[in-house]
Amino acid sequence: MIRAGSIADDWANSAELRTAVQRRGGRRAALEGAIRDAIRGGGLLPLDAIPSSRALAIELGIARGTVAEAYAQLAAEGYLEARPGATTRVAAGAAGSAARIPAIEASTPGLPLSLEAGLPDVTAFPRSAWLAALRRALGSAPSSLLAPRDARGARVLREMLATHLRRTRGVVADPGRVLITCGFGHGLAILCRVFRDGGLRTIAIEDPCLHQHRALAVGAGLRVLPLPVDEGGAVVPSAAGVEVALVTPAHQFPLGMTLAPARRGALIAWARACGGTLIEDDYDGEYRYDHQPLGALQGLDPGHVVYAGTVSKTLAPGLRIGWLVLPEALVEVATAAKERAGGEASVIEQLALAELMRTGAYDRHVRRTRLRYRRRRDQLLELLAERTPWLTVRGIAAGLHVVLELPPGADEQELVARAARSGLALSGLAPFWHEPQGRPGGLIVGYAAPPEHEYAATLAAFASVLD
Amino acid sequence: MIRAGSIADDWANSAELRTAVQRRGGRRAALEGAIRDAIRGGGLLPLDAIPSSRALAIELGIARGTVAEAYAQLAAEGYLEARPGATTRVAAGAAGSAARIPAIEASTPGLPLSLEAGLPDVTAFPRSAWLAALRRALGSAPSSLLAPRDARGARVLREMLATHLRRTRGVVADPGRVLITCGFGHGLAILCRVFRDGGLRTIAIEDPCLHQHRALAVGAGLRVLPLPVDEGGAVVPSAAGVEVALVTPAHQFPLGMTLAPARRGALIAWARACGGTLIEDDYDGEYRYDHQPLGALQGLDPGHVVYAGTVSKTLAPGLRIGWLVLPEALVEVATAAKERAGGEASVIEQLALAELMRTGAYDRHVRRTRLRYRRRRDQLLELLAERTPWLTVRGIAAGLHVVLELPPGADEQELVARAARSGLALSGLAPFWHEPQGRPGGLIVGYAAPPEHEYAATLAAFASVLD
Repeated sequence: MIRAGSIADDWANSAELRTAVQRRGGRRAALEGAIRDAIRGGGLLPLDAIPSSRALAIELGIARGTVAEAYAQLAAEGYLEARPGATTRVAAGAAGSAARIPAIEASTPGLPLSLEAGLPDVTAFPRSAWLAALRRALGSAPSSLLAPRDARGARVLREMLATHLRRTRGVVADPGRVLITCGFGHGLAILCRVFRDGGLRTIAIEDPCLHQHRALAVGAGLRVLPLPVDEGGAVVPSAAGVEVALVTPAHQFPLGMTLAPARRGALIAWARACGGTLIEDDYDGEYRYDHQPLGALQGLDPGHVVYAGTVSKTLAPGLRIGWLVLPEALVEVATAAKERAGGEASVIEQLALAELMRTGAYDRHVRRTRLRYRRRRDQLLELLAERTPWLTVRGIAAGLHVVLELPPGADEQELVARAARSGLALSGLAPFWHEPQGRPGGLIVGYAAPPEHEYAATLAAFASVLD
Repeated sequence: MIRAGSIADDWANSAELRTAVQRRGGRRAALEGAIRDAIRGGGLLPLDAIPSSRALAIELGIARGTVAEAYAQLAAEGYLEARPGATTRVAAGAAGSAARIPAIEASTPGLPLSLEAGLPDVTAFPRSAWLAALRRALGSAPSSLLAPRDARGARVLREMLATHLRRTRGVVADPGRVLITCGFGHGLAILCRVFRDGGLRTIAIEDPCLHQHRALAVGAGLRVLPLPVDEGGAVVPSAAGVEVALVTPAHQFPLGMTLAPARRGALIAWARACGGTLIEDDYDGEYRYDHQPLGALQGLDPGHVVYAGTVSKTLAPGLRIGWLVLPEALVEVATAAKERAGGEASVIEQLALAELMRTGAYDRHVRRTRLRYRRRRDQLLELLAERTPWLTVRGIAAGLHVVLELPPGADEQELVARAARSGLALSGLAPFWHEPQGRPGGLIVGYAAPPEHEYAATLAAFASVLD
């Protein structure tokens, strides 16, 4: 038995060490692991002498060579210092830093019911169609695609998107100008870097808008100017030095109007006059319930508009796939900026999306969900007409949400808090204004978010919050 | 045989069809004309299923009877085949033609043979295991995961990685400190932004190093200082104001030595003394052929080392999944920086990777490819010993490449160009030095890159370049 006297001796005598060495598979690996753990956990301290390999081998009843090999490995890794003829010690720099290992986070809290804006019904995600598309993609993709070389994204998806967007949204696209992204936010971050690197300092963003977009632009080093929105949608930027504007022409987010025809022309004229760029965020352009949707603004002038889309609303945000259709002049710089930022969608999922589009399963899913959301919107509006005539419904029959304008005196924050107390997640309008002070209050009702079987209960909960 | 999916749905959803139906006189006539045109033009192919009259009527906002009449007329004319109770299809003999949407593209051009560094043999990608993992992920994931809320990445993958990295690489990890990225470059870009936003101006990067890493750091606004590499690997940074260094301890890239034990301790001591951070790029740490691999440097001090890994070498770069294990103090800022930059891996692929690890298929694949690459390295070294004794092989028996040092007077560029003329892609050492002037010449031979059945031919081509 090794004499007691130092921490290292206590450790060498410990039951934990014996158990570790006996329990695990390879004895050498087990011993190494136990020593590493002891050093990290403070059971062995820097400069502690550890038993000779001979002594420890006897103590543990294992071969001396095994202990010597473990010591050599740990010396190579910097845990131990072994000098010929001298006692092996814990290396001076190998501290016990195990200290605080934070617990695994609690699972996403979230409220039981949700009318959050911007979310589709993810329970409707076409799992079998997606799996079939993945299978076909994996079955047919040449291996060379698994080591992609084109930073714009998989060519087959860019080709498919060019066709799809031309057909469904009137976008003027060719595959060479399509950049695949990890969703709209990723694309916006790339564009902001491009504009900032090109010497611009400011971007105009609709007021109100999705607040994350302001944060992304600021994060990329741009100053954000509010671009007012009236009944005809975004106004034409008037501030000097503004050459980029982010707009939502098909369905203003969150207010829900469509960009008026004259305003479309005026925005394009502005971009041409200043040599500027419009970023068209077509986040829910496939969901229009009353008419044929308006074609994309980009179709009017593909040289001055970046068209941006995503599967986050049509399929699921978790897929992290979006796209930009770029003016020719931005293709190279935006591709380089994407490479520098390093985000990219899995090529297998890119091929699967192309496959989903090629087989028509994507369109079928869009049609199916379009009917579902349209019905939900109708139900919501019926309920509101009956129960809450004091609320004004804003916006066209489109998309995944409506804004309910509150009458003066109604307290937006109190309503949102009351909803939360009833277990219903819901947002007010305040976070979406650049400066909420003095702005009209409202509630954003994302009727697409709940699973189908919970929609009735969610609406009922909402109604009781308003009562 | 009838195709599973059909472009008839694309067609039914198209703006052209809507316009046609609205523009022309009678709606029935317009619809009939549009269907005839689509069949003649190849927009609809023989045996394509077309939407039910009910679905198309809803889609177009016209009466169902109108659509039914148009279908009946076209069936009478031989364009469609309608049987009671069955789907209406384009008639087998209906005209139509070529214009098919292209299948997945042919392989990337490039040179026929490749010994490029940093690439695994993507023909070995475990397609069926990956598909099985995707199937299980899609079959079991709760829908809520399809709208992810934790910007660090899917918790199940972070948990699996914490265990896997602890076991295989001696990393001290807990899921709370794991950040899923779109690969190493994405993680490095995030870290550089974090350091720059925290007030740092400079990063030390090994010289030589992977040149894209220098570009990423510069793109994120940092100045890059070369960190010299000697026989013991990276030296300790000495310049004032440097508090971050990017190193490759297990297998210096590209030179191939391992970081010496004393150097490991000295680097940790440096990081502690200046309150700095080491970024450990463990790009090929799972591939060591002579010994047990050295454990990660991070294990010595998880508070001062960011551990970074990826599946780009073990599975395929096209998957775009990597990870950072962060010191506690960086978790929040790095997560925020990731959100601002907007890149994120598909949650389905994250779950599939967790599944591949859980079932052991990941380890099996690593073991299988480890044997393969080890054999290839042996073959390469045999060949070189026999044919080119004037070349010095650098580096330990590990990884996916070796560096061949050229004797003074040998012309690196000329050898690379000669290889290219023989159809062999290969890199010299020059691009990897911060300043190649006056540096020793060399060739980087990525023996993992070729498909297995082409390895012999690739080696032969390489030998003839050297002759």
